[in-house]
Amino acid sequence: MNIATPPPGGQRIPVAVLGATGSVGQRMVSLLADHPWFEPRVLLASERSAGRKFSEAASWILPGPIPAAVADLEVLHVGAPPDVPLVFSALDASVAGAAEKTCAEAGSLVVSNARSHRYDRDVPLLVPEVNADHLDLLPHQSTTGGIITNPNCSTIGLVLALKPLSDRFGVRRVSVVTLQALSGAGLPGVPSMHVIDNVIPFIPGEEEKLEKEPLKILGTLKGSHVEPADLVVSAQCNRVPVLDGHTEAVSIELASGASEDDLWEAWVGFRGEPQRLELPSAPRQPIHRIRRPDGPQPRLHRDLEGGMATAIGRLRTCPILDFRFVLLSHNTLRGAAGGSLLAGELAMARGLVPGVTGM
Amino acid sequence: MNIATPPPGGQRIPVAVLGATGSVGQRMVSLLADHPWFEPRVLLASERSAGRKFSEAASWILPGPIPAAVADLEVLHVGAPPDVPLVFSALDASVAGAAEKTCAEAGSLVVSNARSHRYDRDVPLLVPEVNADHLDLLPHQSTTGGIITNPNCSTIGLVLALKPLSDRFGVRRVSVVTLQALSGAGLPGVPSMHVIDNVIPFIPGEEEKLEKEPLKILGTLKGSHVEPADLVVSAQCNRVPVLDGHTEAVSIELASGASEDDLWEAWVGFRGEPQRLELPSAPRQPIHRIRRPDGPQPRLHRDLEGGMATAIGRLRTCPILDFRFVLLSHNTLRGAAGGSLLAGELAMARGLVPGVTGM
Amino acid sequence: MNIATPPPGGQRIPVAVLGATGSVGQRMVSLLADHPWFEPRVLLASERSAGRKFSEAASWILPGPIPAAVADLEVLHVGAPPDVPLVFSALDASVAGAAEKTCAEAGSLVVSNARSHRYDRDVPLLVPEVNADHLDLLPHQSTTGGIITNPNCSTIGLVLALKPLSDRFGVRRVSVVTLQALSGAGLPGVPSMHVIDNVIPFIPGEEEKLEKEPLKILGTLKGSHVEPADLVVSAQCNRVPVLDGHTEAVSIELASGASEDDLWEAWVGFRGEPQRLELPSAPRQPIHRIRRPDGPQPRLHRDLEGGMATAIGRLRTCPILDFRFVLLSHNTLRGAAGGSLLAGELAMARGLVPGVTGM
Amino acid sequence: MNIATPPPGGQRIPVAVLGATGSVGQRMVSLLADHPWFEPRVLLASERSAGRKFSEAASWILPGPIPAAVADLEVLHVGAPPDVPLVFSALDASVAGAAEKTCAEAGSLVVSNARSHRYDRDVPLLVPEVNADHLDLLPHQSTTGGIITNPNCSTIGLVLALKPLSDRFGVRRVSVVTLQALSGAGLPGVPSMHVIDNVIPFIPGEEEKLEKEPLKILGTLKGSHVEPADLVVSAQCNRVPVLDGHTEAVSIELASGASEDDLWEAWVGFRGEPQRLELPSAPRQPIHRIRRPDGPQPRLHRDLEGGMATAIGRLRTCPILDFRFVLLSHNTLRGAAGGSLLAGELAMARGLVPGVTGM
Repeated sequence: MNIATPPPGGQRIPVAVLGATGSVGQRMVSLLADHPWFEPRVLLASERSAGRKFSEAASWILPGPIPAAVADLEVLHVGAPPDVPLVFSALDASVAGAAEKTCAEAGSLVVSNARSHRYDRDVPLLVPEVNADHLDLLPHQSTTGGIITNPNCSTIGLVLALKPLSDRFGVRRVSVVTLQALSGAGLPGVPSMHVIDNVIPFIPGEEEKLEKEPLKILGTLKGSHVEPADLVVSAQCNRVPVLDGHTEAVSIELASGASEDDLWEAWVGFRGEPQRLELPSAPRQPIHRIRRPDGPQPRLHRDLEGGMATAIGRLRTCPILDFRFVLLSHNTLRGAAGGSLLAGELAMARGLVPGVTGM
Repeated sequence: MNIATPPPGGQRIPVAVLGATGSVGQRMVSLLADHPWFEPRVLLASERSAGRKFSEAASWILPGPIPAAVADLEVLHVGAPPDVPLVFSALDASVAGAAEKTCAEAGSLVVSNARSHRYDRDVPLLVPEVNADHLDLLPHQSTTGGIITNPNCSTIGLVLALKPLSDRFGVRRVSVVTLQALSGAGLPGVPSMHVIDNVIPFIPGEEEKLEKEPLKILGTLKGSHVEPADLVVSAQCNRVPVLDGHTEAVSIELASGASEDDLWEAWVGFRGEPQRLELPSAPRQPIHRIRRPDGPQPRLHRDLEGGMATAIGRLRTCPILDFRFVLLSHNTLRGAAGGSLLAGELAMARGLVPGVTGM
Repeated sequence: MNIATPPPGGQRIPVAVLGATGSVGQRMVSLLADHPWFEPRVLLASERSAGRKFSEAASWILPGPIPAAVADLEVLHVGAPPDVPLVFSALDASVAGAAEKTCAEAGSLVVSNARSHRYDRDVPLLVPEVNADHLDLLPHQSTTGGIITNPNCSTIGLVLALKPLSDRFGVRRVSVVTLQALSGAGLPGVPSMHVIDNVIPFIPGEEEKLEKEPLKILGTLKGSHVEPADLVVSAQCNRVPVLDGHTEAVSIELASGASEDDLWEAWVGFRGEPQRLELPSAPRQPIHRIRRPDGPQPRLHRDLEGGMATAIGRLRTCPILDFRFVLLSHNTLRGAAGGSLLAGELAMARGLVPGVTGM
Repeated sequence: MNIATPPPGGQRIPVAVLGATGSVGQRMVSLLADHPWFEPRVLLASERSAGRKFSEAASWILPGPIPAAVADLEVLHVGAPPDVPLVFSALDASVAGAAEKTCAEAGSLVVSNARSHRYDRDVPLLVPEVNADHLDLLPHQSTTGGIITNPNCSTIGLVLALKPLSDRFGVRRVSVVTLQALSGAGLPGVPSMHVIDNVIPFIPGEEEKLEKEPLKILGTLKGSHVEPADLVVSAQCNRVPVLDGHTEAVSIELASGASEDDLWEAWVGFRGEPQRLELPSAPRQPIHRIRRPDGPQPRLHRDLEGGMATAIGRLRTCPILDFRFVLLSHNTLRGAAGGSLLAGELAMARGLVPGVTGM
């Protein structure tokens, strides 16, 4: 985390986490504990956890102890909106929609990791390096606060890999087969009896998201809505016995000719607004080239730049489409908790957090 | 195993196994122990094992004890060709080529699991249900015995799935991403430090085989050689922490229109010569439809019909090619040891084993 | 399974399974499908499953398809006792106690895998090879049917190993550290995020059971109750990423002197009443000696004799107590479903199943 | 790593690593790259690696890239002793003995991770917190440099847990059953086919080391040799599918009475010479108490204090000996590479590195 950049308003602002006890929520809390701009002040969860200390309510699964700054916070019920300018939501989609709306109406800016509002016409589906301009949808929203959404964990790595190619060469068709980590299913998530010595070639709803979300993210802002990109994605999703890190085998068809060197140059040189603004959670280099012939691999490369970078390797031509490659992205850091924080930081730098002046 | 069909000549014939102590060799020995046609008489391996009892030379990895029929056989060195009419080879490609040639020259029919002779012009690359007619290449070989090869483990399941479609609708292009089991790498094979909590998106030489072998297998016999099929395959191969069973996510483009029901009908109704001849190792139904939405899965479906059937599920249309599906095939049974035995049985039924009359 | 022994009454009797959709329930149903004495007629489960076909209600986790004989049975709610003479219960302890009592009062003999009634004074805690005589407690029960219990999965392998030593040499103290499989926790059971690249050195309630149950099982029948054995057990229980098969590192102190050969002789020659009666589920030899220096191992030895045998290896002296060894027992076969069936068979052979004459 | 303490002589000294490409060697190189006292100048390995760049010779298995400071170093053959004052050896025991001797004779102080010299009468078997005084054996050695050895990875965690108890209450007997990580077997180490869905209840030579080494480490220095401690250890060792972190289930008998609180107080308050000297690799608190009921666990607690702390949990009385508990120690950090570095630091602080003045 880039701790050199001071908060826009000069001091940390209080934030809340909805769904703080789950697997993504724990990652959020862990990242927020020492965050230079945000201070985790309110943790909310379901009825089962409400009223208990965070350290007792959360079945902690991350290495190391629960951060002292939050261990003793009392977990509140998600029913009542917290009185903070910025709310991060790691709620399950089954309850996220309404709860997030309530917070936005109460005046908070909500950065959501759930799918509930992703396709709302006036809600940005944000990957800060890719479509920062979509934040201009926010003023079109009817709530006093606002809602920003984070895409699905398998979408983020893919869209980061596509963006530099889309900008330079155009991308027409994408075929992607994923090998997704277990943490993507949350807690309790996938039973161990289902995945030891096994893979599961199906993740409910995942292929639909991965085929649809990139079109909005790579789409063009037209006033109060986004025109979807002219792109076809075919996705096949598999669950594998890996704790963290989604691996994706990708084939792409470009609109114009390019060499392997052209693609590497586009990827390695790619920088977005988070890099220009030196946001605290921004990786210095969003895309890393992995040169070893058998990489990227989840265990070796998921933690590059604090889990915020996408690793790409094995670029080669494809006998059906144009090119093939393998990408890897940390699904609960870049793909969920870290991605949400970066979105919140971008919103704050832009002066979109209620009551806080931007950079 | 179908034990009802008596051996063509009325009694079991003696066979040898080259490379008996490895992971595929152990499977072969295990299947041969109670085989109704073949009797494992000679076990051969590298210098390190030669001269020891099989039970001491093999670091046994299969559930259950070493079969009593072979436990006390002395392992011989692969240098001298065994005096048996039929030899199964599970040797590593680095030594298989020469050793198999020696056996064929000494008068044995060799069924090989190694890649060494797969592309020899006069050597059948055999999947018994798919290209039994390619056995007509044998008389064109120069040795007194002969060589038949078994394709790569990831090829077999794919070709079995393609054959019925190829016959009825024509197959033009195939995109396949594999999630391959560890046993495919043999012993000692993949270090455990490399695959716990990890996947490896690269298997040396595997993609080349998977892109090339189906063309020969699905090709047309023209006298003394095979004309490759007009087919394009794009393969991306991954190693996953699964013991046995290769999972493959496949997209295909057909030459003529077909519905999902047409494909299922072609697959489920498919039968080949092993089924017509009721060969001992032949599955009754080579392709099984898996109806649960999250199947096939390695642990649940790899052992269908003694590991000799291919399981297919998740058939759906593809926005880029025509259809997508998931297939699963046991890599050391159907994909190696069992496939070799079936090839040997077919050769025997056809009267191609030296000195043995066919069915 | 020994299918040569005909049912005592000449034909299969109808049986019911309580909790048929769970991990142990599925094993029971699987074993009952082709059972020579019992016919699975009624499957019962919780409200969530009731009213659905078994094939739809059960999230099937065993290799191979759901047996045809039960796939279409409608699952009933556990509330109403089934009208069959023999009931196998795989219910969770939270609901087992009352449901089993209801069945027993309605006239069925219940063989339970739950802990609810294990310490009831008049209820046998039965391992058929070990304490068949404890079935004489049954007439002392107040219900018209009756209840027999199966011990905890980690207890059964241990008690089978202790019994032959206890008979010949006396056993005074036992120190046992377990490495237990995931299936012991049922379904959904242990989250995969908790055990990939991990072990958990704690299983709630397990150590207490393993320290207490052997005393009752190895105890002496005194009319209407069992006098506990004079034995001290120290247990430390760990969960490891293994699907099936509990491994136990054991140290023992004997009452009288013995050599390693004496112990092996006692174990290998051990036979109990199930062997004398040739019950269908009885292993021919309850305890197998594993001679390889690195055995027994779960994946290699858990399925010996259909998962009903206990494997022992690595016997050596102990510098603190007298001897040390490693044992392995299949926790959902011998340790649960198979153990329950064997208990049911023993009860039936003895004429203890209501309305059925014994052997 | 405590980077606040400056090197005794004011600047980093050049060091060499023997066996730099293996699994422990990689850890050493990784820790040395940014070490405040030591500068990795010479990397040595077997013939196969010699002459290649380190980045090409090492099959890197640690998360993140190879440190830039060493990536381009040419790997030298272990045959010729490096001209540096301090050498860390991660060689396999089969070659370590002679190579280390050669270095010591050439004038370097060697800190070895191999077992070759552990029982040499004049060689310290060092755990810096436990027996720093054993360094006084060094002047009795005949070489101009010297040899210090690091104990076996499973010994270190155990001895750290025993030391505070031994000092206060006396320890008479210890029964320990281990669940050991795969990295302890090095590279290629345990084949993945052997440990997926499995445990292996045997590690060659391990139990002997774990029963013998603690006696020397906890023994009393008597001039030129160490009088072994009066202690009996019974060890049973298992390999489990965990990447890093040895878990040990321990029972102990004390010489004098103590309460659980007494034990916790002894452990948590324990400090050794590395803590007093604030050595760079020293954990601030060598032993951490884990309060959650299901801890310590390898994935959650192995990295405490950079992998240099021992975690203890589940303390409770034992019905056979006095107390039972579970400990966890990182086997390639504290148990190998990190432990060696700490030993090197202690030697340097004491002025035992040739040509370097101590603190």
